[in-house]
Amino acid sequence: MKVLVCPSGFKGSVSPETAADCIESGIVQAMPEASVRKVPLADGGEGFAHALVAATGGTIHNHAAISPVGEPIHSFYGILGNTAVKTAVVEMAAVAGLSLIPPNRRNPCVTTTFGVGQLIAAAIDDGAKRIIIGCGDSGTSDGGAGMLQALGARFIGRDGQVLPDAAGGQSLVSLAGVDFSKMHPGLKDVEIEAVCNWKNVLCGPLGVARVYGPQKGATPEQTDLLSMALDNYAVVIHRTLGVDISDAPGSGASGGLGAGLLLIGAKLRPRYEALMEYFHLEDIFNDCDLIITAEGAIDDQTPRGKIPAEVALRAKKRGIPVIVLAGTIGQNARVNHDVGIDAFASILQRPCTLEEAVGETERLLTEAAESAMRMVAIGIEWIRW
Amino acid sequence: MKVLVCPSGFKGSVSPETAADCIESGIVQAMPEASVRKVPLADGGEGFAHALVAATGGTIHNHAAISPVGEPIHSFYGILGNTAVKTAVVEMAAVAGLSLIPPNRRNPCVTTTFGVGQLIAAAIDDGAKRIIIGCGDSGTSDGGAGMLQALGARFIGRDGQVLPDAAGGQSLVSLAGVDFSKMHPGLKDVEIEAVCNWKNVLCGPLGVARVYGPQKGATPEQTDLLSMALDNYAVVIHRTLGVDISDAPGSGASGGLGAGLLLIGAKLRPRYEALMEYFHLEDIFNDCDLIITAEGAIDDQTPRGKIPAEVALRAKKRGIPVIVLAGTIGQNARVNHDVGIDAFASILQRPCTLEEAVGETERLLTEAAESAMRMVAIGIEWIRW
Repeated sequence: MKVLVCPSGFKGSVSPETAADCIESGIVQAMPEASVRKVPLADGGEGFAHALVAATGGTIHNHAAISPVGEPIHSFYGILGNTAVKTAVVEMAAVAGLSLIPPNRRNPCVTTTFGVGQLIAAAIDDGAKRIIIGCGDSGTSDGGAGMLQALGARFIGRDGQVLPDAAGGQSLVSLAGVDFSKMHPGLKDVEIEAVCNWKNVLCGPLGVARVYGPQKGATPEQTDLLSMALDNYAVVIHRTLGVDISDAPGSGASGGLGAGLLLIGAKLRPRYEALMEYFHLEDIFNDCDLIITAEGAIDDQTPRGKIPAEVALRAKKRGIPVIVLAGTIGQNARVNHDVGIDAFASILQRPCTLEEAVGETERLLTEAAESAMRMVAIGIEWIRW
Repeated sequence: MKVLVCPSGFKGSVSPETAADCIESGIVQAMPEASVRKVPLADGGEGFAHALVAATGGTIHNHAAISPVGEPIHSFYGILGNTAVKTAVVEMAAVAGLSLIPPNRRNPCVTTTFGVGQLIAAAIDDGAKRIIIGCGDSGTSDGGAGMLQALGARFIGRDGQVLPDAAGGQSLVSLAGVDFSKMHPGLKDVEIEAVCNWKNVLCGPLGVARVYGPQKGATPEQTDLLSMALDNYAVVIHRTLGVDISDAPGSGASGGLGAGLLLIGAKLRPRYEALMEYFHLEDIFNDCDLIITAEGAIDDQTPRGKIPAEVALRAKKRGIPVIVLAGTIGQNARVNHDVGIDAFASILQRPCTLEEAVGETERLLTEAAESAMRMVAIGIEWIRW
């Protein structure tokens, strides 16, 4: 039996790679003769670069950058293996993610994507001709302004002065003009594409400040200010560059980083279409008998674009069964059977707190995979017998 | 696929019958074409009479009796269906069980099995020619003295006075003689057998007072007193009746009720040998493809005589796969694979307290059964395909 193991990670607990290792070891325990192929998945957010590097046999390159609160941090980008043109992956969460911001400093008015621009520049300087940007799990809401500044853009205020670098989204409230004449010269020779949630837009009542600002730590007043600042940003960009970034699909991805990326010619791609391609899942699906995936939770939101459902939708077309292992089985999870998830199980083993479960996720996930495969094996043996 | 569903109950949450109903409905949800046979099991303790009555298509008969703390309660005995001789089942836990005693009155020095004797008498008066006594989950430690008193025995103190009825194990410390001349006349026409843990003995350092007294609420001083009283009881019985009840296998069952039962000619039977016979499990095993059982917990104690392991040991001889659904998967549970349990899974779905889990055991168990069967079905479909 050929089993494809393609879990997402358990946020705050295990990475997609570790999850895949755990599931593999559970499978082998239950069914030593099974052949296991591991393709850890990530949806663009935390873990995306490592997952893509692992899937392609690429390499991780450490690089110093500026954190979302303006401090020096160690970050990284990846260079993919097995590509025709040198391809880098930059994970915005690894340099501007919410988890990099101490809880008491979570204010999306002032956090910056400057580090994202630094990593893009580093990848270009490293010779990359194609860059994949993973969006998701951001702690910023600066419309990608910081990223643009790191790549050479100058934002001019109403007083004619250049706005300070990395000052966050709220500084855009006084934006009056832009100067893109000194952008990084390598940008014109590189293809950039970003993996985005296409539903997120920059401006308006469903704009990124209003939808995500509060969960990134904004007060109602800060949310209003940020929304106004991003609206002004779009107006100024439209007037000066003739580009409408206000409501393009994905423009609101990662606190508006999508909008900034549009300005350097990036192609914003809907998340799962891109992931299926990057991870070569279509090809892999053609050579497997069973898929086991995993995510922190499975519930009635899962069919709305979460990894297990997206995997299952595609597996179902080929008649491949899909098992999902989850930390939590939530509200009305049975709707997932309709999108092609054949069975799901929680990894928990006893009444416990979330913290306790997080502390032993590796063991629990391994044993849950073993349990699932043992049950599959019962069905196989029964028919053989 | 013919599935045998033979769960034990989840103590304090769902009875074996309810557990079987839940598992059945989960199976049918996953595999509508499966044929399900339900045989709820109980190990002699709480739920035993209902389980046996359900398994045989018998009837429950309500009967007033005296509780372990000497108060009137509504209790019951069962009459089994499909038997050659009229057979009753008396569950000691239903009239002298620990759960019938308010926590602040748990003192095994004074609790009594008087009600057990009342139910035996009622079954005899009802025409039963065979009585099965389920031992387990007792709240008493009176050596079965209360039971004997209810059936006509008189215990004589050192002062020559008859000891009061239902005074509990500590009263036996002053026992000097017994009078069995006025026992219930029907006793000589009835076969009595008791389902016991054969490891429990009445007297000595591993006697029932020392091993179980503390968990029934005895202080160290009360435990000493009780142990001494039961030792004296055995000495007096030996001297007067010539019977040694001190360390016969099962004499310590249910606080020494086993010893008392020996004095009315009962045969004490090791638990699982008896259960396999009563529930006709050997026959049923010959006509099933898969067994699903359940218990509150599965851990490294399970192979030491718990229901799932006893079922699995016998199923393994016939090559029948066994799945166990448990509330908690405990320490080193994988040893259970060695006794024939092919797969086990917890019913939990999210981090929660024990109380929360208990409150929704029915739903959790139903959904866990569905999940398990869905995985089995994956194996079946894969081979067919």
